[in-house]
Amino acid sequence: MKHNFGAGPCILPQEVFQEAAKAVLDFNNTGLSILEISHRSKEFEEVVAETESLVRELLNVPENYSVLFLQGGASQQFAMIPMNLLPEGGKAAYLDTGVWASKAAKEAKNFGQIDIVASSKESNYTYVPKGFDIPLDATYFHYTSNNTIYGTEIFEKPQTTVPTIVDMSSDILSREINVAEFDLIYAGAQKNMGPAGVTLVIVKNDLLGKSGRSIPTIFNYQEHIKAGSMYNTPPVYSIFVSMLNLRWLKAKGGIKAIEQENIIKARTLYDEIERNTFFKGTAAVEDRSRMNITFVMDTPELEAEFLTLAKERNLIGIKGHRSVGGFRASVYNALGITSINALVDAMREFEESHK
Amino acid sequence: MKHNFGAGPCILPQEVFQEAAKAVLDFNNTGLSILEISHRSKEFEEVVAETESLVRELLNVPENYSVLFLQGGASQQFAMIPMNLLPEGGKAAYLDTGVWASKAAKEAKNFGQIDIVASSKESNYTYVPKGFDIPLDATYFHYTSNNTIYGTEIFEKPQTTVPTIVDMSSDILSREINVAEFDLIYAGAQKNMGPAGVTLVIVKNDLLGKSGRSIPTIFNYQEHIKAGSMYNTPPVYSIFVSMLNLRWLKAKGGIKAIEQENIIKARTLYDEIERNTFFKGTAAVEDRSRMNITFVMDTPELEAEFLTLAKERNLIGIKGHRSVGGFRASVYNALGITSINALVDAMREFEESHK
Repeated sequence: MKHNFGAGPCILPQEVFQEAAKAVLDFNNTGLSILEISHRSKEFEEVVAETESLVRELLNVPENYSVLFLQGGASQQFAMIPMNLLPEGGKAAYLDTGVWASKAAKEAKNFGQIDIVASSKESNYTYVPKGFDIPLDATYFHYTSNNTIYGTEIFEKPQTTVPTIVDMSSDILSREINVAEFDLIYAGAQKNMGPAGVTLVIVKNDLLGKSGRSIPTIFNYQEHIKAGSMYNTPPVYSIFVSMLNLRWLKAKGGIKAIEQENIIKARTLYDEIERNTFFKGTAAVEDRSRMNITFVMDTPELEAEFLTLAKERNLIGIKGHRSVGGFRASVYNALGITSINALVDAMREFEESHK
Repeated sequence: MKHNFGAGPCILPQEVFQEAAKAVLDFNNTGLSILEISHRSKEFEEVVAETESLVRELLNVPENYSVLFLQGGASQQFAMIPMNLLPEGGKAAYLDTGVWASKAAKEAKNFGQIDIVASSKESNYTYVPKGFDIPLDATYFHYTSNNTIYGTEIFEKPQTTVPTIVDMSSDILSREINVAEFDLIYAGAQKNMGPAGVTLVIVKNDLLGKSGRSIPTIFNYQEHIKAGSMYNTPPVYSIFVSMLNLRWLKAKGGIKAIEQENIIKARTLYDEIERNTFFKGTAAVEDRSRMNITFVMDTPELEAEFLTLAKERNLIGIKGHRSVGGFRASVYNALGITSINALVDAMREFEESHK
């Protein structure tokens, strides 16, 4: 058995892979592959409807919010958000907690004035800035709730009366959130929602249509809402597999249940990192992510050796991002505690053999 | 056996479905699903490289052109093309041969002056306008080579010295083309290239970087070229299945071979439409498409009855688009002559039983 700690695209449940493979040969007993059915067929319209309904149920999305399945990943949202929301000459506030947060701000600069309210860049983003001011005349405030590369996570929405937009690409569906606190939530699917190729957007309807900009149809949230995520051919298979994965999550007991598992998984690994004399965490303890656990060695020369052991133990994808180094264990919903234990065992084995 | 005449997403070869399903369970003997592998893995980088190389080989793409795999479908290209190419205050020329051609022009109006050089809208797009002038001061000329809804196709590029952009979503890879005649070719994959979720763009490098516009990174062709279609997480599975399909096409003998099959398939069906006293074609004979064959009945009241027979004979997806009515048989690369014969047989059976 392989233990896939990859940062994304990432592990999904084995049951989902089984169903997903079956539908490529015969979708829903239609005698057709899911890859060849019309996106306008009754069968696929039901897939989209069920996927939306599962998102609404699992995240308890209020009725005055729309749920959209788009393309282009979070990176496309970096541009679509200001294109839809910022009036000409308008201003938005961004919190800089990493490369992705910083890219979001950079793209927004094409559309207006961008204030960086705080940044932890000077420490290579090892912590989340606190106690910053969000200008009250900003059209919106944007932040990234989980910083995949640096292993930090923001569990509480920063307090502000300014409409708040959050990139939850790598922690959505991993813990309970109050959607009503936010005005727009977006996430590339390829962590806890599904495979690559689809992007989830949850947007409060009355946030839209106010910027006065002329927006190309394909980039206009209101057009996608009107068309029920079917303005043009959607990424059929990515939505279908997301539906299977959301069904799995619901059957597991929903987000409340998975959050408890995620807490235990993260604690198990962080405990070992603290206990083991060869390893140390890189993120500030109070900001540690439950999804991406970053750690290094006191003796960096040994890191290659541990990677070799990890490979022998079928621990996949634990090499750290080049900008942090060391290791990163991404422990998304579908990764079981067995895999955490396998990693912990390898860390202990390494310690034993180097005493 | 089902005969899938759907307009897109559409039939792909059964061999492709078999391989595509296998990789969802175990990709390339990695012990991992294609849905959970990192897009930065060596294995997936090889997929992208092979897909590009197959496109280049099959279409004989010159070296000074880039081949990109993007998201958002042809509809996103409607906006990206003028965003990248049209200077502020610039002008582009569009030929109006249907709803999609018209939408392309409409979206471009967000970025500059758009001249419609000719339109067949007054006849519900049953023919392709000829003998129009393309203004020499246009930055580019845009047309749609195959009009899926109306069953018309433009086989010869209109003569002009103005850089020419073509939407080949529904006929790319179905017939030989000379890429060097064009400056940019684009196509949603979900007809002859692969499943929904990926868009092919073939662009002459020296067309780019001249508009003087500030373009969000995700919409900038040059950024995608620099990143080898990996600026952000690509639609992994859609690219993978496209690769399988392009391998199949190459093994069939490439485009020269498939074009011969497509000619025979189309001729067989058009011949029956002409011969059979109950049916008649809707498109002008000289502009008839080889991919989407549109036809109606002399007695429209009988159309529902023929649809019922078609369903009984496992002929899927032949109901015409609402704006044309009647029937549409989409006869893409993967649809074999057996399926054409099954449709012809049903048409003859219908004729016999109504004599």
